[in-house]
Amino acid sequence: MKKRGFDGMLVSNPPDIRYLSGYLGHDAYLLITSRRAIFFSDFRYEEDLEPFRKWAKVVMRKLSLAHDAGAAANDLCLRRVALQAEYLKVPERAAIAKAIGKSKVRDTSSILTGLRTIKDAIEVRTIRKAVKIAQDALAATIKRLKSGQTERAICAWLEYEMKMAGAEGPGFAPIIAAQANGSRPHYSPSEKVKLVRRQPLLVDWGACVDGYTSDLTRTFGFGGMPAKVQEIYEIVLESQLAAIAVIKPGVELRAVDSAARSVIEKAGYGDRFGHGLGHGIGLDVHEAPGMSFRSKKGAVLEAGMIVTVEPGIYLPGIGGVRIEDDVLVTEGGRSVLSNYPKTLKSAIL
Amino acid sequence: MKKRGFDGMLVSNPPDIRYLSGYLGHDAYLLITSRRAIFFSDFRYEEDLEPFRKWAKVVMRKLSLAHDAGAAANDLCLRRVALQAEYLKVPERAAIAKAIGKSKVRDTSSILTGLRTIKDAIEVRTIRKAVKIAQDALAATIKRLKSGQTERAICAWLEYEMKMAGAEGPGFAPIIAAQANGSRPHYSPSEKVKLVRRQPLLVDWGACVDGYTSDLTRTFGFGGMPAKVQEIYEIVLESQLAAIAVIKPGVELRAVDSAARSVIEKAGYGDRFGHGLGHGIGLDVHEAPGMSFRSKKGAVLEAGMIVTVEPGIYLPGIGGVRIEDDVLVTEGGRSVLSNYPKTLKSAIL
Repeated sequence: MKKRGFDGMLVSNPPDIRYLSGYLGHDAYLLITSRRAIFFSDFRYEEDLEPFRKWAKVVMRKLSLAHDAGAAANDLCLRRVALQAEYLKVPERAAIAKAIGKSKVRDTSSILTGLRTIKDAIEVRTIRKAVKIAQDALAATIKRLKSGQTERAICAWLEYEMKMAGAEGPGFAPIIAAQANGSRPHYSPSEKVKLVRRQPLLVDWGACVDGYTSDLTRTFGFGGMPAKVQEIYEIVLESQLAAIAVIKPGVELRAVDSAARSVIEKAGYGDRFGHGLGHGIGLDVHEAPGMSFRSKKGAVLEAGMIVTVEPGIYLPGIGGVRIEDDVLVTEGGRSVLSNYPKTLKSAIL
Repeated sequence: MKKRGFDGMLVSNPPDIRYLSGYLGHDAYLLITSRRAIFFSDFRYEEDLEPFRKWAKVVMRKLSLAHDAGAAANDLCLRRVALQAEYLKVPERAAIAKAIGKSKVRDTSSILTGLRTIKDAIEVRTIRKAVKIAQDALAATIKRLKSGQTERAICAWLEYEMKMAGAEGPGFAPIIAAQANGSRPHYSPSEKVKLVRRQPLLVDWGACVDGYTSDLTRTFGFGGMPAKVQEIYEIVLESQLAAIAVIKPGVELRAVDSAARSVIEKAGYGDRFGHGLGHGIGLDVHEAPGMSFRSKKGAVLEAGMIVTVEPGIYLPGIGGVRIEDDVLVTEGGRSVLSNYPKTLKSAIL
């Protein structure tokens, strides 16, 4: 903050508040200066904020979060307060600027985003746990698969298993895509679509542990896999392994994307891989760094980042294959945190 | 739109896009004029948008949603385009304004919010279904309660039951608060806190069906209820019934809040009921109208609104009681959509 000339920062994005303070509630602002921290919230969170009074001031809503934050900034004689404009809705931003004083606020982009991309030992351990819970839950769910089961029912059991194993819940709404539905990269499990023999089943899922999310994808063939799907499975797997192999500190984000994409392009499916290769995971399921053909030149991987590697090929009417692992960038290269089997052989259930 | 002088509207809030078009995807904008509809999205949603090509144009991302929408607005020679500023993040709003032309965009507040508060017959039927699924799932979950079960495990089963009964999922993260934790109006089920005999259990839950959410709360005593909790239970129930009784078209929102609040104030717990009485439900779990002591003078209930009625009393260290039903405002008065038992007797499990 100091380096950028701020004497205060109003943190409004819940994962950032959690990152800085450990506070899990919503509907809160956190004002920080070099010497103070003040939470603004309301009656509903009074008891949850009690433990934070040890080291922070807690202001229960008088008029509005914006008003109360403005009054506090005024009391502290702050002259230049950083706002998280990228997470603020337009009227929220306007209310805050008015309350603190228009000349005293500046929109900042991502002071915290930068910090959050590099995971410390506790964060790595937490994400490892989130990976393990997700993998164990999928293994238990796969054991119960039956022909005719709906995508929704498979999803319901997977989520149940994750919660019972210690997850707060799924890290995001799981994608369970049976038959040809894997060709839709974003898809919601249906209560009508059923698991059918010799057809694919794509599962994109993750567990949330202490706010941190794992994010994995596997594609299966239930009692067999159509020849075309097998063909693209092998291409996607080769592509994914090629990308993982180049991961190490200093490598450009776009170069990792390119390592995967070139395999798929050479196989003639370049136009059927329309999304980026991966993204950071942490307190948000999608966070920096994005690893894409759109990534900025010069932006590189750093030790401590944890990214997904998830190439895919999508063929409407036939199905889609995506294979996704979570990879920690280490000083020496990489450590793949997930180890759910992914050979073609293991993918045929 | 015409009345307000707009010849176009850029809809960016997902529930509003769903409301207008039935499209369920995210990462989309919808531009509407009096004669056209254009979706902007990307590769990941290509197949999902296919059916919409019958009546709308679909633009797959060229540069960015903002850029593509700006180009389209330009092609259509639009002169005044309404933006949903209340849902746009600051940089999104800036990108759109730049793309369409700063002089051509205007922030609107809630053209659609107004429409959405009044539910049509299909919406009422859908919410009724969401209420029924939620109630049935809770009944099934209550049957499985055992001393020592964790809040997390109870939550996991409740969600499983809702999905298996036809819900897309819970309408929001359920609150399952055992022992004294009901005193925290917003609370996340813990894997450590267990169900204990003769202690309260508060459940705030809802099911999501076709995007529409029910939102209910019941407070139980598991094998008995401490005397203090029984005392506040009866006050909260009286307060809730008093509020429901005054609901009809034309009644001020704040008057409904006041009907509930005065009962709790008279009993001496006014300062322990620190939130508003209720809110609209629909495609968002919290939507207009808010029904609170903060509601504007003159703002009234209208036939077709569906609101929650959820007074509570919260005593840190002892527990909280909240009782919440979903109520449809009818021409003749009201129809309570939920009927999960709520007498004190039925609350003792």
